[in-house]
Amino acid sequence: MILPVTDADDPRIADYAHVRERDLVGRQGRFMAEGEVVLRLLASRLGTAGGHRLLSLLLSQAQAARLSDVIAALPEEVPVHVASQAVMDEVVGFPIHRGILALGAARALPEPAALLDTLGERALVVVALGLTNHDNMGGIFRNAAAFGADAVIIDVACCDPLYRKAIRVSVGASLVVPFVRVPNAGMLLELLGARGFEVVALSPSGQEVLSHLARPPRVAALFGTEGPGLPPELMARVRTVAIPMATGFDSLNVATTSGIVLHHLAGV
Amino acid sequence: MILPVTDADDPRIADYAHVRERDLVGRQGRFMAEGEVVLRLLASRLGTAGGHRLLSLLLSQAQAARLSDVIAALPEEVPVHVASQAVMDEVVGFPIHRGILALGAARALPEPAALLDTLGERALVVVALGLTNHDNMGGIFRNAAAFGADAVIIDVACCDPLYRKAIRVSVGASLVVPFVRVPNAGMLLELLGARGFEVVALSPSGQEVLSHLARPPRVAALFGTEGPGLPPELMARVRTVAIPMATGFDSLNVATTSGIVLHHLAGV
Repeated sequence: MILPVTDADDPRIADYAHVRERDLVGRQGRFMAEGEVVLRLLASRLGTAGGHRLLSLLLSQAQAARLSDVIAALPEEVPVHVASQAVMDEVVGFPIHRGILALGAARALPEPAALLDTLGERALVVVALGLTNHDNMGGIFRNAAAFGADAVIIDVACCDPLYRKAIRVSVGASLVVPFVRVPNAGMLLELLGARGFEVVALSPSGQEVLSHLARPPRVAALFGTEGPGLPPELMARVRTVAIPMATGFDSLNVATTSGIVLHHLAGV
Repeated sequence: MILPVTDADDPRIADYAHVRERDLVGRQGRFMAEGEVVLRLLASRLGTAGGHRLLSLLLSQAQAARLSDVIAALPEEVPVHVASQAVMDEVVGFPIHRGILALGAARALPEPAALLDTLGERALVVVALGLTNHDNMGGIFRNAAAFGADAVIIDVACCDPLYRKAIRVSVGASLVVPFVRVPNAGMLLELLGARGFEVVALSPSGQEVLSHLARPPRVAALFGTEGPGLPPELMARVRTVAIPMATGFDSLNVATTSGIVLHHLAGV
C-alpha cells in the first residue's frame, strides 16, 4: 500500500522521526532496518513461523521506483511511505543517502532451552559474552550466517543485535540467525553440557591450537571482549583454544576471530 | 619536554585544532595517532631505520601522569603538550575521552620494487585493490600484523592507511607493517611475478577452495571491494580462491576475509 508523504511532520511517519535519538531510548521490541540488501532479506522471510513482522517502510521516491518488485510482493496492509529525499532527510534527522528504512516488530526471543532443543545432532552455536560494541556484534552475526551457524547465544551484558547499526553491519544476519539471551555463564554451560555440546573458548592463552582442533559434532564457540577476555572461572571449565599470532602484535578483532573460528569449524 | 597548555588557542597546539575537519584535507605526509596502545607502539619504534617521526604529543593531564614512562623515554626535543581535558576537548573539537593524541611525520613510501626486494624466500604479502573504507583498511593491516605478513601493497584507488581512523582500527598496525602503492594491477602482477610470488585472488567465484590451498613459499593474497570484487581481467591472470559459505548468505566482510586467509597461509 503506497502512501505518498509530502510533509516531514506527517503523523503517519512519526516512527521515523529523529532515528538516531530513537536508537538510544528503549525500542520496545521494534527494530529499524536500512538499505536494499537488508530489506530484501527481511521481505523474503516474512510470514515464516516465529518470524519478525514488518510494520512499515519509508522510501525515497528513487528507491520506491527501484524496489517495485519488493513492494508488490509485500502484504497489502503494510504501509509503504514514499517521500522526496529532502523530506526523508528532514524526518530522520540526517542525510540518509540509501533512502530505505523499514520498521519492524521483533519476534519474541525464545527460551534458551527451547531453541537448543530444536538443533540437530550436528550443530554449531556461537556464544558472545560481554560484547558491547555494535560493530563487533553485527560482524559476529554476519559470520554466523555466512558459515551456517545454527544459533547465537548472548549474555545479558551484550548489546542488542537488533540495534540499527548492528543490523546494518550484520547485513541483516541478526534478523535471520536465531539468538537467545542467557542470564549468566553458569546457566550457559549447564544448558550446553546437558545437550552434549563441546564448549570451546577462544583466548590468546588457550591450551589448544585452533588449526589442530577436530570439529566436535555439537560445538559451541565462546567469544569474550577483546580487552579483559573471558572470565578465568569460565575458562577453567571449558576447552580453551588459541589462534597463534606473530610475536609483538598479538591482537585480533573479536569479529574477525569469530570468522576464523567458524571457517575452521564449518569446514572440518 | 613537557609543555603545559592552558589556552585552546595556544599556537603551539594549532596542529591539533579541529581534528575531524583536518582529516578531510590533505595531510601532507603527517598522521594523527590516538590512544595508549598505538602511542606505545609508535614510541617503541622511533629511531628505527626508515621509521616515522614523532612531531609532538597532546595529552590530558590524567593521561600524562599515567604515561610518564613513555614520556621519559622520548627524545628530549619532542614537545609533550599537556592540557586539561576541557582544553583538549575544545582544541580537537569533540570530547576526546582517550586524552591521547600524537602527531607524526610519515616515512616516505618506498618504491614497490625496492620493498619487495627486501623480502625473504618465504614471504607473505597482502594486496588490497580499490578499498575505500577506512575500517576495512585498518582491519586488513591489523590482520597483516597479527599473522606476520611482510608487506601490504595497495593501489591508487585505496584510501590512506595512515588516515586517523584507519590507524585506530588497525591498532597501530598501519604504522608498523611496510606498505607501498602501485599505479595499476598490471604493474602489480609484473612486480610480483618477476620475484616468484604466487598470486591468489580471493573471490566468491574462486576456482580453488581456501582450506585445500597449499602455502606457496612466496605468496601474495589479493582482496578487492565487497561489492564489485576484483576485475575479471585480473582474475583471469591469477589463481582464484573461494571461501565456501552457507547457501543464501554468501557474504563476508573483506577485513574478516583477510583474517581467514592470512590465518590459513601463515599456519600451513
